[in-house]
Amino acid sequence: MDYRMCWLEYRGLPADVAGKLKDWFSSVSILEPGSSVLKDEIRRFSERSIGITPRFYSRPLKKEKYIMVGRLESLPIKLDVNLGEEGFMLRTIEWNGSKILLVTGETKKALVYGIFDLMKRIRLGEDIEKMNVLAKPKAKFRMLNHWDNLDGTIERGYAGNSIFFKDNRIIINQRTKDYARLLASIGINGVVINNVNVKKREVYLIDSIYLKKLKKLADIFREYGIKIYLSINFASPVYLGGLDTADPLDERVARWWREKARGIYDYIPDFGGFLVKADSEFNPGPHMFGRTHAEGANMLARALAPFGGVVIWRAFVYNCLQDWRDYKTDRAKAAYDNFKPLDGQFDDNVIIQIKYGPMDFQVREPVNPLFGGMEKTNQILELQITQEYTGQQIHLCFLGTLWKEILEFDTFAKGEGSYVKRIVDGTLFDRENNGFAGVSNVGDSVNWTGHDLAQANLYAFGRLAWNPDEEIERIVEEWIKLTFGDDEKVLENVSYMLMKSHRTYEKYTTPFGLGWMVNPGHHYGPNPEGYEYSKWGTYHRANWEAIGVDRTSRGTGYTLQYHSPWKEIYDDINTCPEDLLLFFHRVRYDHRLKSGKTLLQTMYDLHFEGVEEVEEFIKKWEELKDRVSPDIFERVKERLHMQLEHAKEWRDVINTYFYRRTGIPDEKGRKIYP
Amino acid sequence: MDYRMCWLEYRGLPADVAGKLKDWFSSVSILEPGSSVLKDEIRRFSERSIGITPRFYSRPLKKEKYIMVGRLESLPIKLDVNLGEEGFMLRTIEWNGSKILLVTGETKKALVYGIFDLMKRIRLGEDIEKMNVLAKPKAKFRMLNHWDNLDGTIERGYAGNSIFFKDNRIIINQRTKDYARLLASIGINGVVINNVNVKKREVYLIDSIYLKKLKKLADIFREYGIKIYLSINFASPVYLGGLDTADPLDERVARWWREKARGIYDYIPDFGGFLVKADSEFNPGPHMFGRTHAEGANMLARALAPFGGVVIWRAFVYNCLQDWRDYKTDRAKAAYDNFKPLDGQFDDNVIIQIKYGPMDFQVREPVNPLFGGMEKTNQILELQITQEYTGQQIHLCFLGTLWKEILEFDTFAKGEGSYVKRIVDGTLFDRENNGFAGVSNVGDSVNWTGHDLAQANLYAFGRLAWNPDEEIERIVEEWIKLTFGDDEKVLENVSYMLMKSHRTYEKYTTPFGLGWMVNPGHHYGPNPEGYEYSKWGTYHRANWEAIGVDRTSRGTGYTLQYHSPWKEIYDDINTCPEDLLLFFHRVRYDHRLKSGKTLLQTMYDLHFEGVEEVEEFIKKWEELKDRVSPDIFERVKERLHMQLEHAKEWRDVINTYFYRRTGIPDEKGRKIYP
Repeated sequence: MDYRMCWLEYRGLPADVAGKLKDWFSSVSILEPGSSVLKDEIRRFSERSIGITPRFYSRPLKKEKYIMVGRLESLPIKLDVNLGEEGFMLRTIEWNGSKILLVTGETKKALVYGIFDLMKRIRLGEDIEKMNVLAKPKAKFRMLNHWDNLDGTIERGYAGNSIFFKDNRIIINQRTKDYARLLASIGINGVVINNVNVKKREVYLIDSIYLKKLKKLADIFREYGIKIYLSINFASPVYLGGLDTADPLDERVARWWREKARGIYDYIPDFGGFLVKADSEFNPGPHMFGRTHAEGANMLARALAPFGGVVIWRAFVYNCLQDWRDYKTDRAKAAYDNFKPLDGQFDDNVIIQIKYGPMDFQVREPVNPLFGGMEKTNQILELQITQEYTGQQIHLCFLGTLWKEILEFDTFAKGEGSYVKRIVDGTLFDRENNGFAGVSNVGDSVNWTGHDLAQANLYAFGRLAWNPDEEIERIVEEWIKLTFGDDEKVLENVSYMLMKSHRTYEKYTTPFGLGWMVNPGHHYGPNPEGYEYSKWGTYHRANWEAIGVDRTSRGTGYTLQYHSPWKEIYDDINTCPEDLLLFFHRVRYDHRLKSGKTLLQTMYDLHFEGVEEVEEFIKKWEELKDRVSPDIFERVKERLHMQLEHAKEWRDVINTYFYRRTGIPDEKGRKIYP
Repeated sequence: MDYRMCWLEYRGLPADVAGKLKDWFSSVSILEPGSSVLKDEIRRFSERSIGITPRFYSRPLKKEKYIMVGRLESLPIKLDVNLGEEGFMLRTIEWNGSKILLVTGETKKALVYGIFDLMKRIRLGEDIEKMNVLAKPKAKFRMLNHWDNLDGTIERGYAGNSIFFKDNRIIINQRTKDYARLLASIGINGVVINNVNVKKREVYLIDSIYLKKLKKLADIFREYGIKIYLSINFASPVYLGGLDTADPLDERVARWWREKARGIYDYIPDFGGFLVKADSEFNPGPHMFGRTHAEGANMLARALAPFGGVVIWRAFVYNCLQDWRDYKTDRAKAAYDNFKPLDGQFDDNVIIQIKYGPMDFQVREPVNPLFGGMEKTNQILELQITQEYTGQQIHLCFLGTLWKEILEFDTFAKGEGSYVKRIVDGTLFDRENNGFAGVSNVGDSVNWTGHDLAQANLYAFGRLAWNPDEEIERIVEEWIKLTFGDDEKVLENVSYMLMKSHRTYEKYTTPFGLGWMVNPGHHYGPNPEGYEYSKWGTYHRANWEAIGVDRTSRGTGYTLQYHSPWKEIYDDINTCPEDLLLFFHRVRYDHRLKSGKTLLQTMYDLHFEGVEEVEEFIKKWEELKDRVSPDIFERVKERLHMQLEHAKEWRDVINTYFYRRTGIPDEKGRKIYP
């Protein structure tokens, strides 16, 4: 296996920096038994970045400078800090005649976080002598969802095959551990290893035949503070248990799940729990038995509760057999309509996992009104790290900027300041079991993510999940420095590219919140009416004079799902943010935007601009030749050129589509194919 | 296995008819050794339709009335007739004190045809006493092409799985023989058993591992006068032979094919030959090596020639990676442009197989100009019996009427009377190796064709291939009577439905030769712009005022591939047949048709009419309850109701599509979704 370690490459530090660090790292006191993960990481860093092999001790030392790692209760020094289960402290103190860099926390997991953070800070140039960090994650659940199938394929995967499965078997190899390292270094504490669509063979993952191997996987991940979760099929009692029903109120069903849970926890005592896609896109669920999502989720939750497990229940429920001739049903309203009435009915160990927008990970959507809509329900924000609708890791599309906007969105659920980030971290409604889930963009490709720069999406997800208050510019800078080193030009150019790339992608694809003008099925490339007459509830209904769905109070009423003032802002074509104009409104092509230009002319302009920006990206990247490693340089260059070609395809198809509808040419006389 | 025998059910005849036949069938003289097929068929008919078991003799009899079957040279009577290899004679004569119904021909195959024809005529009510028939097929090659894959799937199959393959094995069972019977009864004399796309496992079909089983299959089909053919991959010398090239001018390649041919003929001495899809839709071909189709085909032909085999080479060659922004390339021109220059360069045992139209089996296309374009090349007309673009055996769409129109098309290649049927039967250009190929609509479903009434397509194909001069109304009547019996109401209603059904399907889908407004990939259901920005060269380029591609001399020049007067007729929007208006011309929606109505209003009208006609079909079918067997009645009824629902979907999508483009409502105020 040949693959890169992304932001954990641990390149050699400059001689002067390394020199200052040698004293610190030559002797390390680790006051914990069974701490091979900590030692491995410190050794790896020391050897690669500093050029020494540290000696480890399990007691305090007599030495001018050294590093001491241990849980608060193991330390010889008493510290009065409250770090919680996952928080850690890095602090350089003087004690007993030594200068000691303390790495501490309440748990072993916290020490792992502390070590990774320390390595990072050193690599980013922080002075070890002045180290004084106290960090706690804001949200309890920071998860990755893998849409990996047992046969090794990945639904919406764009970086090779699964690192977890092949030929209906679970894979465990060096990469398993390296993946755990990567995730721990950005604070991920849970991984759902299989696809939410649990079909065929995947149903058996909770069966005894797989548990032995799952246990091995869990053992490796546990060392890095990561729990394993499984997606399950709600009808498992029928498929696996031979029952004639999966009705959650049938005691035989509940008993079957209780026994199943016990069986799993016998092998994996800290098993995380179940992720459930129920009554959604042909997956079975409680509705099949006339039961509510609450009844379904609570039944499962009660099976897991004795062991400390949770049920994560997706809110992605809508009518996927809509008739395009039905103008009343609005898919955007579905999640709220389905789950808002159940607010308060879910058990404490049930968490509702909600996609960021009301549709499905389009390049831009408004924030899902369930955030701020449900007050008495645990919630996880689901983001898509894998670039299904955003260029499939062929296009450069850094998503951190979009995610940051989502997190900073003020729902006004409890008046001003009711940000999404305060809902997701649990503080706004004072809830504990909240957090983040990101659909993984990782596969077995050499660079994990297909596009090397797509590693930044994984990194940014982890960092925002740990601390949604972090500035995205800072996260980008961190990632670039950790990945490429300290070259100023690399920082400048890659930062420029990443920060701009989502907007660029949006410009040449579907701006104004339009979405869905994509090829059905695989979701790559333009197809303006690809979803126009389908069953999926995703229509723009463009005609000769206007486009878009009226989702205002005068239309489908979707805007009414928001709190004031958004309800009113979105409802009015003149106050609605133009980024989302075609999401909320049906708009004439000759409608004047704030710029004074028509919608149509702006549509043309954005598409030409988007392509020009990709050309600019290529220039910026070319400037980095000999500044980044040749394999990365060539891989990214190749993808940028594919992006350019496909961006032109987008530009031309969309512009032609609108030209053919309106007959109105581009004011600037640029080429639009007739 | 439970399945029907279609038009060979041999229902009991009325008592009076059966009574008259008993004398004839009680004793049958068969003057051929090894004639179990003839005996089986006569016995089956006698037992089922007449209620007696005949006694067979291998000599002339002394009896008032009897049937005598034998080749001309075996008969005790000398007859001066020229029947050719496949012709037969049925004649009732008096000889040696007996009334004898003679069934004769030059070959055993001809006797099989004669027996099936005799059974048919009796069942259709002809008087055995007055029998006097002399029949010869007009065309030498009357083939079915199965697009069956070794795994048992069928490309474009809508009636279950393959009857030839399953799990990478060849299937031989009772159905194999029954299929041969069905085909022999309609005069089919060749079957290509595997898909023209020869990928994966199918490449190995010509390898020794499959030959033993293929021989068994050929043995069964031979008894019914049917030869086996295989589709091959042009790059087999590389895949199978381990050569580094498949260049047809490389002697190693030619030698490999010669040896391969010898190997096949060792097992199957009357093997028909190869069908080749080369340089087409990602299949390899001679162009990969800088060689022409003639060079490629002739090399293969010379390998087969010593054994009497032929190479059937498809003309379906076009650029399937076209850029929609390229307005000059016209896929319609491709077959002619590729093959016309090669006219005269092909060996005698090469046959070019040409799809009926220049595109790909749309509901209506003009006749391919290669018919009449090539004068010195053997040609096979390829028709698609399986309903890929014509409703996939969910919709009732009898294709015999379309095929008849194609066959009656006058190409004017040698002046008036240069009908396609005279090219395909070889008489116009005095060629021997010409004929018909139909892409099979058969699978392992209980009724062979999914839709019971789709059996009529298979029947009509065979009958037209035998005699393209036959009237289609007569073929339909035959099929109905043989399948359902003599009920007048059944004849009236089913005949009405079949004869109208293609036009009906055309009306509610894509009239005017428009085509391609279909879902990409599976080709079922409406998608007006599904192929509009694709790589396949299939564009209509609808805008706010017009639709269609200008294929006239002022446009792509496609019309110039036709002889006069078609060249001029098609070139002029005022003389172009309206059925094909949008195939040849770009037309404004407000263009007035001969009816005085606009194109747009006619488009609306046809779509409403089409749906009304399906409703009428349902009424007609309901009238037949208790007149056809209940299983068939229910199956067809169910499909008709699906057809109605899907016809409405077509109507609404296409009408909405045009309304959204134009903003012009239906003059009659019918519902068009906005």
